[in-house]
Amino acid sequence: MNYRITVLPGDGVGPEVMAEGMKVLEAVAKKFGHTFKLEYELIGAVAIDKTDFALPEETLKMCKKSDAVMLAAVGDPRYDDPKLPVHPEDGLLALRKGLGLFANIRPVKVFDELVNASTLKAEVLKGTDFIFVRELTGGVYFAKPKKEWLTTKGRKATDSMTYSEQEIERIVRVGFELARSRKKRLVSVDKANVLKSSRLWRQVAIEVSKDYPDVALSHVLVDACAMQLIRTPTAFDVIVTENLFGDILTDESAQLAGSMGMLPSASLAGIPQSGKPTFGLFEPIHGSAPSIAGKDIANPIATILTVAMMLRYSLALEKEAASVEKAVEVVLKQGYRTDDIMADGNTRVGTRQMGDLIAAEV
Amino acid sequence: MNYRITVLPGDGVGPEVMAEGMKVLEAVAKKFGHTFKLEYELIGAVAIDKTDFALPEETLKMCKKSDAVMLAAVGDPRYDDPKLPVHPEDGLLALRKGLGLFANIRPVKVFDELVNASTLKAEVLKGTDFIFVRELTGGVYFAKPKKEWLTTKGRKATDSMTYSEQEIERIVRVGFELARSRKKRLVSVDKANVLKSSRLWRQVAIEVSKDYPDVALSHVLVDACAMQLIRTPTAFDVIVTENLFGDILTDESAQLAGSMGMLPSASLAGIPQSGKPTFGLFEPIHGSAPSIAGKDIANPIATILTVAMMLRYSLALEKEAASVEKAVEVVLKQGYRTDDIMADGNTRVGTRQMGDLIAAEV
Ligand SMILES: CC(C)[C@H](C(=O)O)[C@@H](O)C(=O)O
Ligand SMILES: CC(C)[C@H](C(=O)O)[C@@H](O)C(=O)O
Repeated sequence: MNYRITVLPGDGVGPEVMAEGMKVLEAVAKKFGHTFKLEYELIGAVAIDKTDFALPEETLKMCKKSDAVMLAAVGDPRYDDPKLPVHPEDGLLALRKGLGLFANIRPVKVFDELVNASTLKAEVLKGTDFIFVRELTGGVYFAKPKKEWLTTKGRKATDSMTYSEQEIERIVRVGFELARSRKKRLVSVDKANVLKSSRLWRQVAIEVSKDYPDVALSHVLVDACAMQLIRTPTAFDVIVTENLFGDILTDESAQLAGSMGMLPSASLAGIPQSGKPTFGLFEPIHGSAPSIAGKDIANPIATILTVAMMLRYSLALEKEAASVEKAVEVVLKQGYRTDDIMADGNTRVGTRQMGDLIAAEV
Repeated sequence: MNYRITVLPGDGVGPEVMAEGMKVLEAVAKKFGHTFKLEYELIGAVAIDKTDFALPEETLKMCKKSDAVMLAAVGDPRYDDPKLPVHPEDGLLALRKGLGLFANIRPVKVFDELVNASTLKAEVLKGTDFIFVRELTGGVYFAKPKKEWLTTKGRKATDSMTYSEQEIERIVRVGFELARSRKKRLVSVDKANVLKSSRLWRQVAIEVSKDYPDVALSHVLVDACAMQLIRTPTAFDVIVTENLFGDILTDESAQLAGSMGMLPSASLAGIPQSGKPTFGLFEPIHGSAPSIAGKDIANPIATILTVAMMLRYSLALEKEAASVEKAVEVVLKQGYRTDDIMADGNTRVGTRQMGDLIAAEV
């Protein structure tokens, strides 16, 4: 089959890790006889440098014509000053909104081989394998009013944590669908003891649960969840939550896997159902890591696992996705490690060599 | 000296742990020759049961006439349903607002004796000793609009994350004052890459820092902070952040200490300066833990350390505060443990016996 992929390498280590992701995709193409037509476009700081926009119109257009979008990372210290009119991250936010990517899916899987790589005890981590479903186009990230203004007593600023029942319903459904395909347990995270938007969230979750009598729904407050994630990470299977809570809790969870360099993510424009393709944007959860850019030491595994998610969710190529995931596992078993996950007895490899090894294994 | 303390035992394990806290306070009174006049009042579910209000007017009045307020815990599963008109937690929120307690101070200290009690590796935790300063009367907890309404397309709900520069300034000052009395490093946590209220927060923090040239200020995004807290907890000294971020991050941090049963907190109505009393409410950070209430197994140490914070911040009795903290350390060194922190080789004791041991040590 022929597929059209927009590729956004972005900033910092972005281009390096994306190159390895595409190397692995090429291996999949050869092995399974597919053709992936790659269209490279600009986003983030490189886009600001060349066009003054963090998300050039042409990039958005190309994405819309594709079957899926691969993004590596955006962010550059040159554009960190909040007072600047445009930031690389604005490009990412505009892309999420522009493509209607309301469902961010972040699997947190601790590979047995890396069970010692985290700051948590191995016996606590062993077997950790859950999926975060984060709402990505609503809440305090996008809702209006969102502004700073001057009162007679000085400056004031506000952001609005607003949700409609439709926004809640569709994301909660993503959670239920995924839970149905796994252990049939869904945890919905909110702050219903304080927030009106959380009370509506909880009510809607309960209503939607009527359509999924085979899935057990429970509710956990966001503060309690932040604690439970590091106390009993194996207790979770699928977790669904709103945008800001998801931002915080998924980064916390990333630490369980030992390194951000291990974790992929998918941002979908629809409710995934097994076997049916859903348009989406796929990116590793790590950032642009400017301090290690260009040194051939960044871990490309997150990007490579991201390629697997793209194959699964947007192209409905489950076999191909599994072959990539399997290859990663094999190479880890063989003891190859990038800097961020090195331990005694392992073989240290660079970004490119890790990509070569995994591509060869596919 | 004579001091007047309002005592709010509240719900669940509240009365049990409060009894031990007061036992230790009595020991301090005897040893140092003070008189503490205790006024017991209602809050939470017990207050709803008796008065229909989570915070009866009389309780608030009595608190205002006191030098300090001690609170154990509120919360009861009988009042969990979000649809009920009043919840025990509403009493706590009303008390914070009613007493103007804008500065929540939560020390996170990992005792050497408990360095193995957490799910984090001992070598990562050893030496962890930082203080969270959480804004407590603003942001998304209290700002208006805060409502649910019906549109032609269905329900919608909103909460407002609003801050004025005055609200930010006074809490950031609390952070700077504490940092000045410690290692002179202050981390301000925000989400300035997405939120307008965070951009104002960061700007004001930078402005206030001019008054504290001896303190090094840095900024960390809330998602990155959630990760760093469990990656390198010893890197932190004083952290200041807004209400909701503080709620999530302090609960996460609580896991570092092995058990919620170890952590005290202070909520102050002013900027603490060493040697000067500041009115405040003092409470352990754990909840009412209804499942273990009445069994004499709850850990009273958080409440006892909370008594120490009250002595320090609201009564300016530093020597007395230190004697309580020292007593806790000694009893832990002797190997006595409640259920939640038991390990091989320790001596298991109940709530009351732990209180007796610490009071005797004072
Ligand atoms: C870069 C930033 C705007 C973004 C977010 O907050 O969503 C990032 O932290 C993420 O989680 O993808
Ligand atoms: C009980 C609840 C309203 C409260 C809060 O969210 O502030 C609690 O979680 C806390 O941290 O003290």
